[in-house]
Amino acid sequence: MRIALGVQYDGAAFSGWQSQPHGNTVQDELERALAEFAQTPLQTVVAGRTDTGVHGLGQVVHFDTDLERTVFSWVRGTNAFLPESVAVQWAKPMPDDFHARFAAFERTYYYVLYVNPVRSPMLSKRAGWVHTPLDVAAMRESAAYLIGEHDFSSFRAADCQSKTPVKHVYRIDVREQGDFVHFRFRANAFLHHMVRNLMGCFVAIGRGRHPVSWMADVLAARDRRAAAPTFMPDGLYLAEVGYPERFAVPPPHIASMPWSAIWTDQT
Amino acid sequence: MRIALGVQYDGAAFSGWQSQPHGNTVQDELERALAEFAQTPLQTVVAGRTDTGVHGLGQVVHFDTDLERTVFSWVRGTNAFLPESVAVQWAKPMPDDFHARFAAFERTYYYVLYVNPVRSPMLSKRAGWVHTPLDVAAMRESAAYLIGEHDFSSFRAADCQSKTPVKHVYRIDVREQGDFVHFRFRANAFLHHMVRNLMGCFVAIGRGRHPVSWMADVLAARDRRAAAPTFMPDGLYLAEVGYPERFAVPPPHIASMPWSAIWTDQT
Repeated sequence: MRIALGVQYDGAAFSGWQSQPHGNTVQDELERALAEFAQTPLQTVVAGRTDTGVHGLGQVVHFDTDLERTVFSWVRGTNAFLPESVAVQWAKPMPDDFHARFAAFERTYYYVLYVNPVRSPMLSKRAGWVHTPLDVAAMRESAAYLIGEHDFSSFRAADCQSKTPVKHVYRIDVREQGDFVHFRFRANAFLHHMVRNLMGCFVAIGRGRHPVSWMADVLAARDRRAAAPTFMPDGLYLAEVGYPERFAVPPPHIASMPWSAIWTDQT
Repeated sequence: MRIALGVQYDGAAFSGWQSQPHGNTVQDELERALAEFAQTPLQTVVAGRTDTGVHGLGQVVHFDTDLERTVFSWVRGTNAFLPESVAVQWAKPMPDDFHARFAAFERTYYYVLYVNPVRSPMLSKRAGWVHTPLDVAAMRESAAYLIGEHDFSSFRAADCQSKTPVKHVYRIDVREQGDFVHFRFRANAFLHHMVRNLMGCFVAIGRGRHPVSWMADVLAARDRRAAAPTFMPDGLYLAEVGYPERFAVPPPHIASMPWSAIWTDQT
């Protein structure tokens, strides 16, 4: 039987998602907890392999097992063996053609920017920090160049394992609220470091270091050297993974994210 | 010259405010950073000595010094020597009769409760967690018994050093938003563990274990054994300290608290 799990985690505690020899990854913790609960090793397949410091709100994994357990016992049983920094949010039996990675047609990321001359301890590792004012209208305007299917090589990390640099960005929303600027990115998929590299360019434009149209130049260059440095991972959240409706994947429980209200009021 | 500072900190990182021989307190970190910046020891007096795990949004301290520094250099200079879990938010020269503790006439605390069957990693150490539904109306109703000047011995920790158990609670607000229940407590001062002990009783009433009127019984008992166990510190924030207007103490920068919007929209 194939089981899908919704997983949340505080990325600050981990060296990213993917299992590593030295451990300390979300995958290591999750598979260790599943094995303890199930009393047998279980291998997971994940929707999006997030980097060090990147948080998971709506991460999805699947695994195959012969064990019969109720849905809520997969949640509660696994959580009993997980540290405070990771928690399974839901579990759901799936047909065999469900695949956490290959069945996903859309990923949504949030980036939270805190704009204030003085840093805030409660936001450490939770939001990117910029200590000078930003031109939010300019950032929003520059986002328009990125919508659609493009070669995003300029925003691609050197070690990116994607087969193609061509991705389809469906929408980018930019909203200001108090001292925060909230970004939401929706695409079929993202290259390695793509959102952080885009954020580096948005912040450069917001600070007035480049004009709005510079984003178009960077995109057209298809060269990583044309873009700004990779921005800090602190404010980056994998918010949601989209699957075909027939799988009825539960929505991510983003209400548990204090900032999510800004996105839940409207689509 | 007397200088006041506004200080924020993530209480999860510390063994409370007050300096201890083994260190790891907010006061230890702050005085170490001030000494490094000022190149001379500086002793601070604090408005409210928060416990282990309790966060500071609007904490206020003062100290005396002969050093001449600009206001912003006290902020930036001290922050350069502080860990990510503490940050000075503002600095202000004060008349000699200002006293961070004795000039304060009001303290405001927030308590954030997360109500959901499943815990959330991003809220670990940031919000109290209750996994069963709560009757928010009953909790709000029971708060009415506490308003005014009362002997709060039932909510007082054994080691409380306050001269009197009589405190004046000005208001308690209870607001529901999504999966959260937000509490705001305003009083002239609080006994040791008072808010956490009140929260224990609110949650017991919210769960239906006691009727609304039980809060009045607990208060009247003036006996710690009459109340519920001390609730977890995770969701507790010292939000604001009130001083006479003539000191013009800067308002706490609670916009940096993701949940603060619920309180900033109205008084």
